[in-house]
Amino acid sequence: MVDNAGMDTRLDFDRYDHVRPIRWTGDALQLLDQRNLPFAVEYVACRSSDEVAAAIHALTVRGAPAIGIAAAWGVVLAARTIDALDGAEAARKLEPAMQRLNAARPTAVNLAWALARMRRALADAGPDWRERIEREARAIETEDLAANRHMGALGANLIAPGSGVLTHCNTGSLATAGFGTALGVIRAGVAAERIARVFAGETRPWNQGARLTVWELQQDGIDATLIADAAASHLMQSGQVQWVVVGADRICANGDTANKIGTYQLAIAAKHHGLKFMVVAPSSTVDMDTASGDLIEIEERDAAELLAFRGERTVAEGVHAWNPVFDVTPHALIDAIVTEKGVVERPDAARMRAAFPG
Amino acid sequence: MVDNAGMDTRLDFDRYDHVRPIRWTGDALQLLDQRNLPFAVEYVACRSSDEVAAAIHALTVRGAPAIGIAAAWGVVLAARTIDALDGAEAARKLEPAMQRLNAARPTAVNLAWALARMRRALADAGPDWRERIEREARAIETEDLAANRHMGALGANLIAPGSGVLTHCNTGSLATAGFGTALGVIRAGVAAERIARVFAGETRPWNQGARLTVWELQQDGIDATLIADAAASHLMQSGQVQWVVVGADRICANGDTANKIGTYQLAIAAKHHGLKFMVVAPSSTVDMDTASGDLIEIEERDAAELLAFRGERTVAEGVHAWNPVFDVTPHALIDAIVTEKGVVERPDAARMRAAFPG
Repeated sequence: MVDNAGMDTRLDFDRYDHVRPIRWTGDALQLLDQRNLPFAVEYVACRSSDEVAAAIHALTVRGAPAIGIAAAWGVVLAARTIDALDGAEAARKLEPAMQRLNAARPTAVNLAWALARMRRALADAGPDWRERIEREARAIETEDLAANRHMGALGANLIAPGSGVLTHCNTGSLATAGFGTALGVIRAGVAAERIARVFAGETRPWNQGARLTVWELQQDGIDATLIADAAASHLMQSGQVQWVVVGADRICANGDTANKIGTYQLAIAAKHHGLKFMVVAPSSTVDMDTASGDLIEIEERDAAELLAFRGERTVAEGVHAWNPVFDVTPHALIDAIVTEKGVVERPDAARMRAAFPG
Repeated sequence: MVDNAGMDTRLDFDRYDHVRPIRWTGDALQLLDQRNLPFAVEYVACRSSDEVAAAIHALTVRGAPAIGIAAAWGVVLAARTIDALDGAEAARKLEPAMQRLNAARPTAVNLAWALARMRRALADAGPDWRERIEREARAIETEDLAANRHMGALGANLIAPGSGVLTHCNTGSLATAGFGTALGVIRAGVAAERIARVFAGETRPWNQGARLTVWELQQDGIDATLIADAAASHLMQSGQVQWVVVGADRICANGDTANKIGTYQLAIAAKHHGLKFMVVAPSSTVDMDTASGDLIEIEERDAAELLAFRGERTVAEGVHAWNPVFDVTPHALIDAIVTEKGVVERPDAARMRAAFPG
């Protein structure tokens, strides 16, 4: 199979794609518990939509595409608790459960997007509505994996052979159905022998880079070097990286991108050093109804995430912390937005409108 | 007392100056163990110069001015082990101990500066050489405290009333004889009611901001808000800070400044947001023999600092990390360098030469 980015993808991509965070077993949703990685590799079973919502809120499952997939399966679990003659009746009865799933995390648009797909699947369904939503949840998952492999090829194609890349947070198999978004580009770039060096920031305070990204790449035999988030500019100055490659939780109509706290800082530093900055996300992350980044609600989580480590206090009692967990990177700092629909270079409102006519 | 920065300093400064990291007791050097703060407030006794060198290397005592002071007392301890008729003979016999003290940390110039002062005190000393070096060590310590209060007034005077400031690492009482360098400016700015908001970055991987800075300010009744290092640009974008105020481990002849890893990134981000960036350090930190920052040796410490927390592994086995602990901020990103000799605004080689004619 030759991808339309011009790469032979199938064989090499399988070699670098062993991790799966979500498993539907027919009666439960098994989630790889990302709070305990890399110390324990354990799946937890969710048997109700509220258990799924709680798992999303508690970060058992995280990553914008993965929480969309989990929420879709949450709707399938909620359907087990109701009777309905057709999709329209089911939709009415499932709406409270879908609202609770939607409220589990505020920033990522994929959650609302996946639920909207489930609602649409129900809207024109007859007595077969149960099969329809199960099929839809499965489609959301399998389409995500295919999209990631396609994006991987598209993004890697932008990177010159011998390059080093820096990534942030975890945008990998763990954050998606598999393969990952930004980590998918890194996997594809390694497979294509374009990426020679991979660096990952710790990503405080939840340490997704330190706990998840380097572990996940290790499972696939990809060597990554961990750095403190604050070492990124010094790394850039050293000449070891040519691209910053990150994911997105929401991409606005003008290309402004919400992503994990620290992304904005990396984009500023990349621009300062004349390096390239790539955002990789499925088109479900694109929110053409939000004109620009200043309109995005930024989730602030409990200050305790900065004040304790694994339940143990690390900062003096009585100290305050401010813990915004996303920030917005203005489109002017972004060189390329890669979705499964293609690459938008130097994104702005006009180029985004052309790429996503809606 | 009216400082020549135009502030009445004495009364208010005492109110904000309660922490002392170094205590000379006549037979031992008591060091406040900064590895265990804020969990335990404990002094450890060093009774030999090699114990002082080990404490400097192990970060029991840290902060460029404080390690200079500790090294000076280390020489006094070494003197207890030798006999000499005059300073010249003592200097020869003490040289191996001084070399070991000097090798304990490579980046900060204060260590070498303090040892050079001790050598000079010995050079023209007669049979009273023991008293001379003890007096010199005490002078290094008391001059540091006085310099910090003076710098505090000078730096605070640059800050407009109602401002917010962001600092990095720990540049406070704990890093000096007392009062601090950048934290001295913050103390003075709070005392003068110019600084309304104080933010401190965690400063990974050693968490000096999270463990030390917010604790130290709390001892003096100053409320500081902790942020993840990666949240600094988002904070700047929010309009809550007007100045970044940091210390220095070495300031070159052109104003380029080596400081804790992450400082460079803050300077880039401050410039991007049109905010001001201030470096505060005693003139002993100025190294007019090093022309520019690219000539500074950057200390890299054990990757284990990024891979474990308090001895417990936090990252998957087999993962590599890169742990440079300083970076260099080019002078073009610095708005003011404050030493006890005055303020150098928009530093460059010519302005530095005028301020430090040597």
